[in-house]
Amino acid sequence: MYTTEYLLNYINKAINEISYSNKPEGLYAPIKYTLDGGGKRIRPVLTLAVCDALGVDIAQAINQALGIEIYHNFTLLHDDVMDKADMRRGRPTVHIKWNEETAILSGDAMLTMASQYACINAGDKIAQVMELFNRTAMEVYEGQQYDMDFESRNDVTVEEYLNMICLKTSVLLGCACEMGALMAGASDEVKDAFYKYGVKLGLAFQLQDDYLDTYGDPVVFGKKIGGDILNDKKTWLLISAMAEDKSGRLQKMIGADIAPEEKIKTVTAIYNELNLAERCHVLIDDYAADAISELDKIQLSAEAKSFFVELAQKSCRRTH
Amino acid sequence: MYTTEYLLNYINKAINEISYSNKPEGLYAPIKYTLDGGGKRIRPVLTLAVCDALGVDIAQAINQALGIEIYHNFTLLHDDVMDKADMRRGRPTVHIKWNEETAILSGDAMLTMASQYACINAGDKIAQVMELFNRTAMEVYEGQQYDMDFESRNDVTVEEYLNMICLKTSVLLGCACEMGALMAGASDEVKDAFYKYGVKLGLAFQLQDDYLDTYGDPVVFGKKIGGDILNDKKTWLLISAMAEDKSGRLQKMIGADIAPEEKIKTVTAIYNELNLAERCHVLIDDYAADAISELDKIQLSAEAKSFFVELAQKSCRRTH
Repeated sequence: MYTTEYLLNYINKAINEISYSNKPEGLYAPIKYTLDGGGKRIRPVLTLAVCDALGVDIAQAINQALGIEIYHNFTLLHDDVMDKADMRRGRPTVHIKWNEETAILSGDAMLTMASQYACINAGDKIAQVMELFNRTAMEVYEGQQYDMDFESRNDVTVEEYLNMICLKTSVLLGCACEMGALMAGASDEVKDAFYKYGVKLGLAFQLQDDYLDTYGDPVVFGKKIGGDILNDKKTWLLISAMAEDKSGRLQKMIGADIAPEEKIKTVTAIYNELNLAERCHVLIDDYAADAISELDKIQLSAEAKSFFVELAQKSCRRTH
Repeated sequence: MYTTEYLLNYINKAINEISYSNKPEGLYAPIKYTLDGGGKRIRPVLTLAVCDALGVDIAQAINQALGIEIYHNFTLLHDDVMDKADMRRGRPTVHIKWNEETAILSGDAMLTMASQYACINAGDKIAQVMELFNRTAMEVYEGQQYDMDFESRNDVTVEEYLNMICLKTSVLLGCACEMGALMAGASDEVKDAFYKYGVKLGLAFQLQDDYLDTYGDPVVFGKKIGGDILNDKKTWLLISAMAEDKSGRLQKMIGADIAPEEKIKTVTAIYNELNLAERCHVLIDDYAADAISELDKIQLSAEAKSFFVELAQKSCRRTH
């Protein structure tokens, strides 16, 4: 098994080697800017790691891994337009650095580029690759739509929330894993187990993201703490608290005209009274354990198995 | 050969039979609204007509024809957001009827849907289908980017303009024709000739669009005459006139604070002095003749040949 660091270098090298048409610059410069922005590259790492774990040369799956990473970055680009977000990964977003029309059009081109990469060297697996890729993409849009719908609703259930993050985030991690297995020529059982591993990992990953936004260390996390609280974002923490807080104090905080620090302090105090930080971690650990149990269905070397076990464990305890 | 009317009915029936997920409604309702909006359906008609002309059942190519039509409607949806257009085909645009976020996200989903349809029953041609589809899509974005770039430039040449409309409009008509030939199992020579026929037809088609915006009959054309003039849109008419008008009168009209009727009248008068209406039609006729000459490279029945000849001739003289 290659190390995560090796896979990351391999992926970043491939991203650097993407050749763009020079013209029109207004179309291609924002794409390069977006892909050069870094990020964890967890999705392509998963694709290559699965391919490697199944004993197949990672070169077999690199283009599909890039396709998924380009797709992920396209969703961030368009989400930032929809959310009117000014910053991403410490830099101005595309619609701020250029303009909104450029952000929309470059995003569209990235989606087509993602599909192009997914097709490269897919050989006789191309129909399955496209089926997996397009089905997942549709689910991601559904997740984003639910996320937007939830903004204007105050009756979102925990179940609806988990379904939303599953669509918006987790299925793409499942797709990344299954893609690696598919390109390695794995059986349906192995592909299915890796897909489920990725989905469960994605749920743990996203819930940890929600947790860190309230309970993270701002220095390590790299952004201000409490953004979700200030935006009344329907996270697992808020939805759970809304369902249980009988005092009405939380309801009063939603959309309240109150100093930011005061709001963060008050809402966090309610979360603490309900013991939500700990309960959130129990849920995260459950998902990580579910992910790990999927690995039992796959014949893996001890080394490969511990790679995926550690990845799941690290996702639950990551601090940034 | 089936008639255009038969092909249109066949296509509209297939569009009506598209099944959408019910949820989330905010994602799928705007897609259905967009696809139900009508339009000429010229691209899928071309795909099916080529398939039919080559003696193959049109059912073989219907999903690819739908993919191209969905793609075309996706570009209109996102172009309307970028251009801040309020109306399309006599109805409010998606970002007006819903909102901008919905228009962006539903458009993204339409692009993925287009790719899904292009893949259906593509069999062993799927790699070629995706290559043609994705390459064309990238060219269309390039054309749209040039179109946006031209807005802030006053030195656009006729050559640059023709290259822009070729990318933005014509290559998709070329793609529609080639797709029909590809799905019919045609040789590279036949595919290439049909591609070129479509591109030349597209150039004639777009130039006629520009012509009608200034010289059309508003009742038949279905929209107000002179919109391009009022928006200082860099059309073939304006670019040609800018290059030739030595009086400086036209330059003064660009961005001028002047009554709309007055501006349309003055600019049209300059066009008339330069005899541009007639010269535009000479150019359109040349492209149509070029399109028709491509047909000589293909073995076609007399009936099939006259179908494509008449289509090219009608495109040059269409009034709406």
